[in-house]
Amino acid sequence: MTKEINVAILGASGAVGTELIELLESHHFPVANLKLLASGRSAGKTLLFKGQALTIEEVNEGSFKGIDLVLASAGGSISKAWAKTIVSSGAVMVDNSSAFRMDPKVPLIVPEINPQAAAEHQGIIANPNCTTIIMAVAVYPLHKVQPVKRMVVATYQSASGAGARAMEEVKIQAQAILNQQTPTAEILPYPLAFNLFPHNSALNELGYCEEEMKMINETRKIFGDSEIRISATCVRVPVLRAHSEAVNLEFEQPFPVKKAQEILASAAGVKVVEDWQKNYFPMPIEASGQDDVLVGRIRQDLSHPNGLELWLCGDQIRKGAALNAIQIAELLLQENLLHPSKTVAVSVGQ
Amino acid sequence: MTKEINVAILGASGAVGTELIELLESHHFPVANLKLLASGRSAGKTLLFKGQALTIEEVNEGSFKGIDLVLASAGGSISKAWAKTIVSSGAVMVDNSSAFRMDPKVPLIVPEINPQAAAEHQGIIANPNCTTIIMAVAVYPLHKVQPVKRMVVATYQSASGAGARAMEEVKIQAQAILNQQTPTAEILPYPLAFNLFPHNSALNELGYCEEEMKMINETRKIFGDSEIRISATCVRVPVLRAHSEAVNLEFEQPFPVKKAQEILASAAGVKVVEDWQKNYFPMPIEASGQDDVLVGRIRQDLSHPNGLELWLCGDQIRKGAALNAIQIAELLLQENLLHPSKTVAVSVGQ
Repeated sequence: MTKEINVAILGASGAVGTELIELLESHHFPVANLKLLASGRSAGKTLLFKGQALTIEEVNEGSFKGIDLVLASAGGSISKAWAKTIVSSGAVMVDNSSAFRMDPKVPLIVPEINPQAAAEHQGIIANPNCTTIIMAVAVYPLHKVQPVKRMVVATYQSASGAGARAMEEVKIQAQAILNQQTPTAEILPYPLAFNLFPHNSALNELGYCEEEMKMINETRKIFGDSEIRISATCVRVPVLRAHSEAVNLEFEQPFPVKKAQEILASAAGVKVVEDWQKNYFPMPIEASGQDDVLVGRIRQDLSHPNGLELWLCGDQIRKGAALNAIQIAELLLQENLLHPSKTVAVSVGQ
Repeated sequence: MTKEINVAILGASGAVGTELIELLESHHFPVANLKLLASGRSAGKTLLFKGQALTIEEVNEGSFKGIDLVLASAGGSISKAWAKTIVSSGAVMVDNSSAFRMDPKVPLIVPEINPQAAAEHQGIIANPNCTTIIMAVAVYPLHKVQPVKRMVVATYQSASGAGARAMEEVKIQAQAILNQQTPTAEILPYPLAFNLFPHNSALNELGYCEEEMKMINETRKIFGDSEIRISATCVRVPVLRAHSEAVNLEFEQPFPVKKAQEILASAAGVKVVEDWQKNYFPMPIEASGQDDVLVGRIRQDLSHPNGLELWLCGDQIRKGAALNAIQIAELLLQENLLHPSKTVAVSVGQ
């Protein structure tokens, strides 16, 4: 029997935090005690776990005592602020923020792709960026068969990428527009309802935003291939919670479409959704709430003999964040990588 | 003084038709008489032109008698059905449908790009596909300086591309979703509000939809360059009336970003919208109602030394359709290409 462990969620009240709670329950994760942590703003609120109302506590120095696993999803600065406390308290932190993703000492893991990297952890494992995970899950099965040389991606990113309040904001804006009123924007810089705009993360000197650089750098790290050339255009669209991506892949040699379809049809974490007769392909409303990344329109790139085009949608909150974190946690459990000293002691003792 | 001519709009009640009426007025197009034509369904309705209510007539064999210019925007089958009657009645037809675009005898014109092609017309001039026009206007100024070798495009196409009723449908769907009801889809195959899906035009055996093939084939014809290699992924998004596009360009040699920015800043029909400090770039709500194609995020493609990335938005009804048609009509007038025999007689007579 799996030993039950003590789990804390840091950032429990957010869109990803609430999804983490749901997934711990639906995945029958062996939770002894679940502690919900957040900023002072959310402290005192209650959330249900296995039918029990748990009160969110404000995170403090003592919060992680006795905790084996921390699932952090409260943003980079919070993760940075508490990482030392968490690790020195003996817990392993699966961090959903970007704080440690490119740290060479921190494994960046998509369990379908590089589970082996988890063994190298030193207390922190990073969960990749949502847009990157969704793309990586669909592209890696092809990359494994014939290395991808170059990728050009355009994204269609849902409001959930900016959190639960952005999802609420886009609905309020839509209602205003339908009422012939002028929408206002507070969470996102411009109205998103019936509109779209390039991703609003900080731009570097080459004109790439952070979200695009995450796709470039994190994909290389996850694939373990620093040679792969990537360009991305990240765009926010008025969709609630699943991201879509148009992915152009270039290989060294032609990659037959049929072969790509077969590989993806049997790939873990991928569901091929293609009905060419009905013009039916992945859609974000259908990807929402699903574990798999939906992939379709797998076709030859007409502009390049070695190119393939893919169209994909994935739930940004689920596989793009919470589900991947839970899968990492499950991997840690399974490989006895969670809280190594304790785990070893337990193994010896039993 | 410009001679006034008799103009007919075929498909007057549609989204493009009503925009054509507005543009004839705001451009002070020298209209002697304006005849509004449509199917029986719209006949009898009235529309305002220069403060006067004009009644839409059902198109028939005698509709084009005495007409000098027909602006057709009622779909391919209607254009095909009436083209012979129009041309044999002595009028020139500027056709917004796809019916004649790839006909080698029919010029396909974007006035900023290939106005010279108008001289070859034999009674019909085709107005290109909206997505193609918007892209072509922004890419051609660069192509002229250094030929584009390859383009990979992902589009974000508004509901207006499927007509006025699709724009209405997406609003009704949005209201249903906000009211926690299930949206229904009649004009488009799937609900578009808070969703998106690959363009629903017919797919060919390679998996490209008609809209994508239009971008490929029409761009080649407009640019007069059959060598240019293009791939496209066309996607409908819940935006009302402007299309956006992420365009990846590959040249023979590096194309300095600064040079591209300078070229586009002075290009006809283009407005560069870039505030890198504020993360402010083209947005469809801001492109709506504007004549110019808004271009921004002009940057080096990090995946290719000879690549550039562009982000653009253009009003699908305006430059993507009605405005381009009016500009073709103005070109015909200016170059004495409208109704050549008559124009010549007038020139001689005056």
